Amino acid sequence: MVMKKFINDPANLTAELLQGFTLAYADKVRLEAGKLVVRARPKDPGKVALVTLGGAGHEPALSGFVGEGMLDISVVGEIFAAPAAPKVLEALKKANRPAGVLLVVLNHAGDVMSANLAMEMARKQGLNVRMLLTHEDIAPGADAPAADRRGLVGCMPLYKIAGAAAEAGMSLDEVYAVAERFNAQMATLAVAMKTATHPATGQSIFELSDDEMEVGMGQHGEPGTGPSKLLTAARTAEIMLDRLLSAIQAGSGDRVLVILNGSGATTLMELFIVYRTVHACLTARGIEAVAPRIGEFLTVQEMAGFQMFAARMDDELVRLWNAPADAPYFTVR
Amino acid sequence: MVMKKFINDPANLTAELLQGFTLAYADKVRLEAGKLVVRARPKDPGKVALVTLGGAGHEPALSGFVGEGMLDISVVGEIFAAPAAPKVLEALKKANRPAGVLLVVLNHAGDVMSANLAMEMARKQGLNVRMLLTHEDIAPGADAPAADRRGLVGCMPLYKIAGAAAEAGMSLDEVYAVAERFNAQMATLAVAMKTATHPATGQSIFELSDDEMEVGMGQHGEPGTGPSKLLTAARTAEIMLDRLLSAIQAGSGDRVLVILNGSGATTLMELFIVYRTVHACLTARGIEAVAPRIGEFLTVQEMAGFQMFAARMDDELVRLWNAPADAPYFTVR
Repeated sequence: MVMKKFINDPANLTAELLQGFTLAYADKVRLEAGKLVVRARPKDPGKVALVTLGGAGHEPALSGFVGEGMLDISVVGEIFAAPAAPKVLEALKKANRPAGVLLVVLNHAGDVMSANLAMEMARKQGLNVRMLLTHEDIAPGADAPAADRRGLVGCMPLYKIAGAAAEAGMSLDEVYAVAERFNAQMATLAVAMKTATHPATGQSIFELSDDEMEVGMGQHGEPGTGPSKLLTAARTAEIMLDRLLSAIQAGSGDRVLVILNGSGATTLMELFIVYRTVHACLTARGIEAVAPRIGEFLTVQEMAGFQMFAARMDDELVRLWNAPADAPYFTVR
Repeated sequence: MVMKKFINDPANLTAELLQGFTLAYADKVRLEAGKLVVRARPKDPGKVALVTLGGAGHEPALSGFVGEGMLDISVVGEIFAAPAAPKVLEALKKANRPAGVLLVVLNHAGDVMSANLAMEMARKQGLNVRMLLTHEDIAPGADAPAADRRGLVGCMPLYKIAGAAAEAGMSLDEVYAVAERFNAQMATLAVAMKTATHPATGQSIFELSDDEMEVGMGQHGEPGTGPSKLLTAARTAEIMLDRLLSAIQAGSGDRVLVILNGSGATTLMELFIVYRTVHACLTARGIEAVAPRIGEFLTVQEMAGFQMFAARMDDELVRLWNAPADAPYFTVR
């Protein structure tokens, strides 16, 4: 069977998608050295710089969040593959400045290996860089070792919060501290219903029966807690939210940020129906919902499913989350 | 086979999705009378009001564009079905004010019938309302009668331009004139690769073979120019853009706004690859691309495909397109 995607040569996917993306949003981003998406015209080039890295195939993540109040540079790998360490080092050198650089890494083996190597080289060269690892997936259990927990869509609000902190003139240590506080208070759980096609190989990335879904699946089809029968939107929402609120220890009087991140084929219609139950559950527990977002932020090709994200918020985190931003795929007025 | 969507009772889809949507974005919109999505806290309640109507199932359209600088009220029907005329009249009465109301209608039989009936009743009741019909689909030929041409994603930039004009304090006649000028200079063509499931019935909305695509298909699976073999992204982009630029008579020295609107399962990765060719073709013809947008604005459930939109722009249209806006699914800083 022929792969049904609008592509040209599968060997050139990443190069072509980055060219198209940066041509379309030339007022906000530019492409450098082939695989670096760099913020165009920063207002304050002296602020702390935010850099991230990760494979392509998850658009708009990660490069769609380069822009005012978010990332300065996104280092892009091939489809579902980490960029090499020298490319990450190149980005750190480009971003380097007296105020320093925060490198945000999602916990996936390849990304962490490249980041650690690049950090080692950067320190040898005297760059002022700190690294933060996201690992908010609670599929293996909220108290599983951080190393076993993947970084999922939580990177997006973390870029937003760290980006707003940097834009506000905070020092590298201050930006790191607020981002790490948010990092420690966030959790994500994924659910999948239908597989996706790897756009370079044309193969399905996992299999699920026609009457099954799976909670806890990773964003490249990594196994979750095993298949279960299909549930209603309401029941799915209740089960996932319950686990998330336990993980972040949120209860009556707390404020919680919820993000529903569609994986690809799942519609906003469905995510709105899911959010209806999320909101009812939060209200029933005396928890205030803080400026939620529902959309496609970190996708897995045309996979049907979504990630539910929850974070316990405080005054400063709420203020940073709501601060202005102007990236191609995340804008706050 | 069980339908694989995150829903509850298929009979309650529209009510539940509207509740979830308006709870999530309560700072920008509120739900009134069950099916009216109304802008919350307008800064200038005296400005010309913008109202639209259409079936659900196309999220974020149409209600995702209610907000500052865009729509004041969206009247929502059931899945893929027009709202009834009395509901439209209710919205017109709610929006009515000395400055007047512009009702924007996408050319689909049911929507037009409800709108015409509501307009007749509104005029009898002395409301100050004008109606504008979008019909920018060029699938039946750019010079086919307007009645035969469907309203597609062009409604979104038209809401933006008319909304910015209203926000700037223009009169109803002035808002109508600038929106109608844009309406006359815009064109859309759709392409589909994979069908979608009607979320209320569980049925596929059309059929296409594994090696086929179809250009010109409507947003509910209405027939286009017939199936063809799959083409590359580049060839698809060239063919569609060529027809669009002919339709809007754009050539060297002109400025053109392009929007690529994903139908559901088609990824941003693919749309970026398509845009790469669009940009190259525009440049080769001496045409300047004006602030393009690539995303999911008007979807057809999990259909794979996209709509390519193009409009010839002038100074005023560019200024209105780039003016600030703050709707849940369209924000300009």
